[in-house]
Amino acid sequence: ADPEEPAAGRGAVDFPVAVVLPAGGSGERTGLSTPKQFCTFLTRPLISYTIQAFERVPWIERIVVVVAKESHSLMTDIVEKFNHAKVKIVHGGSTRHRSIFCGLQAFAETDESLLHKPKVVIIHDAVRPFVEEDFLHKITMAAKEQGASGAMRPLVSTVIATTSEGYLDHSLERAKYRASEMPQGFLYDIIYQAYQRCSESDFEFGTECLHLALHYCGTNAKLIEGPPTLWKVTYKRDLAAAEAVVKETLSQTACVMTEECAESLDLSHKLLKKLSAEDMLVDVIPNPKGVKGVSLTSNRNFIHISVNSSKLAQIAEMVMVLEETNHALLYPVVIVWVLLTVSEQSALSQRCEAASAIMDLARASEQKNILLYGVQINHSKVPEQWERSVTKLSQLAAALIRDRNPILTGQILQA
Amino acid sequence: ADPEEPAAGRGAVDFPVAVVLPAGGSGERTGLSTPKQFCTFLTRPLISYTIQAFERVPWIERIVVVVAKESHSLMTDIVEKFNHAKVKIVHGGSTRHRSIFCGLQAFAETDESLLHKPKVVIIHDAVRPFVEEDFLHKITMAAKEQGASGAMRPLVSTVIATTSEGYLDHSLERAKYRASEMPQGFLYDIIYQAYQRCSESDFEFGTECLHLALHYCGTNAKLIEGPPTLWKVTYKRDLAAAEAVVKETLSQTACVMTEECAESLDLSHKLLKKLSAEDMLVDVIPNPKGVKGVSLTSNRNFIHISVNSSKLAQIAEMVMVLEETNHALLYPVVIVWVLLTVSEQSALSQRCEAASAIMDLARASEQKNILLYGVQINHSKVPEQWERSVTKLSQLAAALIRDRNPILTGQILQA
Ligand SMILES: [Mg+2]
Ligand SMILES: [Mg+2]
Repeated sequence: ADPEEPAAGRGAVDFPVAVVLPAGGSGERTGLSTPKQFCTFLTRPLISYTIQAFERVPWIERIVVVVAKESHSLMTDIVEKFNHAKVKIVHGGSTRHRSIFCGLQAFAETDESLLHKPKVVIIHDAVRPFVEEDFLHKITMAAKEQGASGAMRPLVSTVIATTSEGYLDHSLERAKYRASEMPQGFLYDIIYQAYQRCSESDFEFGTECLHLALHYCGTNAKLIEGPPTLWKVTYKRDLAAAEAVVKETLSQTACVMTEECAESLDLSHKLLKKLSAEDMLVDVIPNPKGVKGVSLTSNRNFIHISVNSSKLAQIAEMVMVLEETNHALLYPVVIVWVLLTVSEQSALSQRCEAASAIMDLARASEQKNILLYGVQINHSKVPEQWERSVTKLSQLAAALIRDRNPILTGQILQA
Repeated sequence: ADPEEPAAGRGAVDFPVAVVLPAGGSGERTGLSTPKQFCTFLTRPLISYTIQAFERVPWIERIVVVVAKESHSLMTDIVEKFNHAKVKIVHGGSTRHRSIFCGLQAFAETDESLLHKPKVVIIHDAVRPFVEEDFLHKITMAAKEQGASGAMRPLVSTVIATTSEGYLDHSLERAKYRASEMPQGFLYDIIYQAYQRCSESDFEFGTECLHLALHYCGTNAKLIEGPPTLWKVTYKRDLAAAEAVVKETLSQTACVMTEECAESLDLSHKLLKKLSAEDMLVDVIPNPKGVKGVSLTSNRNFIHISVNSSKLAQIAEMVMVLEETNHALLYPVVIVWVLLTVSEQSALSQRCEAASAIMDLARASEQKNILLYGVQINHSKVPEQWERSVTKLSQLAAALIRDRNPILTGQILQA
């Protein structure tokens, strides 16, 4: 479930594989001033998600990212900030095909470069962030065996030919055609040769690497149906969709940490039940004697129940451990701190005390991509009231975890 | 900006126009158990957004929604709940083409039906909610003049033909082809005749109404390039994208209501400045002597500043007016109630008083699709602290308005 977990192994790839990621597009279709590959969601630019999709695959050695010269320093910052160790940045040409050729040349210039020539090279788009290891494996194996391979998808619309006056001429039989998508894989020698042979017109107007391999090297690519997650982030709405996909993945699990008093244990088990009913996978860890004993880094979402406000010290310790392990480098981590008050009388003063403490800690944590929220819940002696409060707490925790809104950090909500 | 405002007029359509909206699909591609046209965001099913896109167009008389028999009562409930006065529900067939034919027949059965035959009929998809009046006008006029018309878009992917073994055969020259999209328009007599003449195979496997008009009536449709907003909600991620589009549209304006005391006026003008800098269109209304004098229904987002908590009565009045005018029927309305406290001493007691009052009102309002949130801000005498609080308030208000999260209603946040 964690986006950083590599997919289960399926037979090693025992030959060198590299990636070329053209990222020179201007992204005018998003309706945004920033090229879409550099648009940010959850504090990270889109291209970093795409890079990460390759970087987590152990058998991929190198990722050559091809950018326009004016994006060089921006791209360097991204690579440094998010620790993309497999990336080499090269400068692109004026069209997509010229940029891909620049990327391929990075492996050919063996005198100047430390990049050794891969057996198979995967070409992908910077704006298709959700490619999975499984599918990359298929593309890679097919490329090795057939010389070229590519993702395809069923057509979503009927394809029509128009007359020069803008009238329907004919429509294509949908079943006979497919949409060609990315990634595509090639034996390096074949695609590099194809680009060396291709014409100025191909460089200028061509759209399809598979066509170049066919036309200049006689290689008929093997086509493999890809999943819908291969879709291309094109419009502003696609950024919202990509963000929603990442948020859903990040929100599938939570770790509830509780003290061993009766009210806190009761609350944690009720939370477990309610959140599980919403398809969240929840672990309850009782009596965390300091957080160091707990494997924090297997989780992205924590619900920490304190029976009085002084326990914010434990949250501060958690934040420190998460920082030290760099756990929030790629995705924000959520901590929902639950202040369980057991008497109406003390509830107000405890809340006040908590309010000033949490705001400062939350501000500092947010800088480290750790999002800290507070929820107060009063342990009512009236069972129906207690049940209502627990339901509300569970809804609030689920919403805070799902939305990951940095603006709301440091707030204490009321369950 | 308001999604309910009809686009500016562009010459009346002086002939009857109706719509057929096939909505019988099972939506297996969303990965959801509910057919996608019935999936809900912002408390309303997708199909209601699509219906509304037609209903707000004054020259469209009738909308025939074609559903599977098992969805009849669900669809009836939607039509009643959201007051879709132009809709007639009919039962569909087993394929898309059969369903469209059922929809067209509703106008032909003049003995049994009150629907008179339209000159032009527009066929659309229930899952393309963002069609604009402008474009419908173009489609309608072209259909009247040419007999048939349809939306087209540039191809987003290269279209390829595959060999029977799954290899690339050839790729199409992208510039020569287009994707056929919806809506499409027809002279009613032409498309009805085409459906009467077409074969079982057309009904079973056909995908393209334009093709039927061409093949059976010799009518070459006029093709008109449509905007990217015509896209089809297909996958779960598209629902998130559609929700984001609607939320963005709803969040473009806000009305700030303020008392005439110096602190409140100062705050409202600072808010105006900060929210305007984020491209929100903000009106400030000073001294609202009761809300009845203010045209509430021209707004979807209110920021109401109270200098002490007793003024929740004005919020209750606003909620009542909004309810009476049915203003939140189609889209949720947001009220951010700002509790401005002018001394640290009284801040806490006022907040407590407010906290219990707002929770009850918020719970009742939410039933009416009116989302009420509280934010407390303390008027610090230290200018830098005041500035920081105002910035925080502005961020919180913008986030509450944009996110429209019903789970957070009734909370009092801290600016
Ligand atoms: Mg290498
Ligand atoms: Mg009529």
